[in-house]
Amino acid sequence: MIYLDYAATTPPSKKVIEVITHSLEAFPGNPSSVHPEGFKARKELNRIKDEIADLINAPKSSLLFTSSGTEANNLIIQGRYFKTPHQRFITTKTEHHSVLKTFEHLEQLGADVVYLPVDLEGYVSSKDLEDALKVPTALVSILYANNETGVVQNIPELTRITHQAGALFHTDMVQVWLHKPVRLHTLNVDFATLSAHKFMGPKGIGLAFVKDPSSLQPHTYGGRQEHQLRAGTENLAYMAGFLTALKETDVLREQWKSNTDALSPYLLSRLKAEKIAFDLNGPELIKARFKAILNVSFHGINAQELRFFLNQNDVYLSLGSACDSQSELPSHVLSAMFKDEKRLKSAVRISLGPMTTKDDIDAFVELMKEFLKK
Amino acid sequence: MIYLDYAATTPPSKKVIEVITHSLEAFPGNPSSVHPEGFKARKELNRIKDEIADLINAPKSSLLFTSSGTEANNLIIQGRYFKTPHQRFITTKTEHHSVLKTFEHLEQLGADVVYLPVDLEGYVSSKDLEDALKVPTALVSILYANNETGVVQNIPELTRITHQAGALFHTDMVQVWLHKPVRLHTLNVDFATLSAHKFMGPKGIGLAFVKDPSSLQPHTYGGRQEHQLRAGTENLAYMAGFLTALKETDVLREQWKSNTDALSPYLLSRLKAEKIAFDLNGPELIKARFKAILNVSFHGINAQELRFFLNQNDVYLSLGSACDSQSELPSHVLSAMFKDEKRLKSAVRISLGPMTTKDDIDAFVELMKEFLKK
Repeated sequence: MIYLDYAATTPPSKKVIEVITHSLEAFPGNPSSVHPEGFKARKELNRIKDEIADLINAPKSSLLFTSSGTEANNLIIQGRYFKTPHQRFITTKTEHHSVLKTFEHLEQLGADVVYLPVDLEGYVSSKDLEDALKVPTALVSILYANNETGVVQNIPELTRITHQAGALFHTDMVQVWLHKPVRLHTLNVDFATLSAHKFMGPKGIGLAFVKDPSSLQPHTYGGRQEHQLRAGTENLAYMAGFLTALKETDVLREQWKSNTDALSPYLLSRLKAEKIAFDLNGPELIKARFKAILNVSFHGINAQELRFFLNQNDVYLSLGSACDSQSELPSHVLSAMFKDEKRLKSAVRISLGPMTTKDDIDAFVELMKEFLKK
Repeated sequence: MIYLDYAATTPPSKKVIEVITHSLEAFPGNPSSVHPEGFKARKELNRIKDEIADLINAPKSSLLFTSSGTEANNLIIQGRYFKTPHQRFITTKTEHHSVLKTFEHLEQLGADVVYLPVDLEGYVSSKDLEDALKVPTALVSILYANNETGVVQNIPELTRITHQAGALFHTDMVQVWLHKPVRLHTLNVDFATLSAHKFMGPKGIGLAFVKDPSSLQPHTYGGRQEHQLRAGTENLAYMAGFLTALKETDVLREQWKSNTDALSPYLLSRLKAEKIAFDLNGPELIKARFKAILNVSFHGINAQELRFFLNQNDVYLSLGSACDSQSELPSHVLSAMFKDEKRLKSAVRISLGPMTTKDDIDAFVELMKEFLKK
């Protein structure tokens, strides 16, 4: 199998699975119970948050676990709406659906949501954000690194502009940790979203960074867990898995990155050398982007047919976000960048990761040649 | 250690942990991915839901996984509100906080919520429900078995009355599966809530039974997972753990139950024999209730002091719901049943489970004697 879909999900590492298994055995108590079995679980939960706080440079009091990046985005965006209704919200046309669909719901409730455009490469304009911020704004939510194209926005600049206007800034950074360390104190955002399964952790746990928990209403009501913003008995074992994946990735990232950062231009040059015509959807590799997430329109092909052919030959990639995989429509991310129907329908996402090899790339190029010959 | 807090949480079984570990290794794909790694995960997810559908006698299309019972309650109650605002909601004063706090939030948004009283034993009156249903009602939500007292409501009767008035019925049944099999088709409710960690499954996964998914708005927006009501990449490993715990409990329940159903009256008779004065909060053992969850006010004691003493002697129980353990207030469940301050402040919950032994009960009674001598 040649797996070129790391942006959809990564496999949990051996160490992550071991840690989860151990935690399930070692901490059977409910962290909210007021007896030693509960205290033991609570102490472990605190240890995990302390270590994460250290690693991502964020106060422990700002860390809330959720069951996914999607839930963290909902918690932050819905939470902000119910705290401050009747104000403006600003986002972009190229967010993940967990952001866009949440905003669509809030629009139905009466929120004023501005969707900023992006340019042909996928970048948001600071000027557009400044203009939109002329109305009092509850929240700006902009993706750090796009899951379909790899484009990286200038988050420090966009945050600065947002704060100048007195608004709060959220960034969904689920694609970031695998490719770049994040130090939240330096980044200075008010909210951020992480998800373990994007960096060799388990599927089923996300993290919301919430600088000031009192800036949100709860998303899930009940017990006092997670600063009373996200009730429910905690999934301690996956919290331990999250931490383990976070640490392992931090150690191995440079090694992984030097591999994928070399393979990515290698793929494009091999395609050119083989005279396979394509457009790169998103910025050139030297610009602000992650090189490991490539979006390519191959001239004259149908992307669904290509995916089917590659699947049959044991090469796995996707046409866009896995969360939107059932849709027959072209990607909303690419549609916001350009309108060319042919280019939209011939686009595939090739996302490289820790286990990608030069042989994988060579095999992919050979299959592309075979597909185009047909 | 003598663990008398099974209503707060149960330890995951050895088999459950094995299944989770295996699933994390065997299914690294994202169930939404359109390639064989995704198909394999999706097929496993469908297999799990098929087996659960069989076990609890509910159509597969009505099963939605969440990260907890609390989240399932929020999904159902909030989801119903946003689908049909400006209508009445009916519940009781003795629900779990994941229901009560959700309704309090909806009241702030303008919902008309009726909180039915309970009698001294904790039962809701059918007549009170009938009266409340005279106004068009979006949802009735009533706990099947109370987590603090073990009282079991007459759910078939309350459902029948609700349906006669044209409303939909939800029951939070997280305490049920450990003590009683549930066949949802027979029960005829519209919504129900289960949680794995209450029957030897992992903490971090719940199940919402939703007869008609179109009767709800989503709680978490984004991808198309879980009938588009609960977006986010699925936690396949815990779904497998949920199923395993469900099956194991179904096989062992009668054996466990014959043990706890004998130990529960044994405990009360031993206390009486030792002339330890107490009130049983909730119905007599022969009435409609689970015998394994006992709530007892010991005359003349302070429950917090008793808990502290028992903790020091390695006996673990609670004063009420773990989700509400940080509260200094007396239990809202008991307060709805009676007003006697002394009785409220001397109440402890003793919840028995699969591993409870006669020796545990004897040791508890000896410690009670010692505590009362001081």
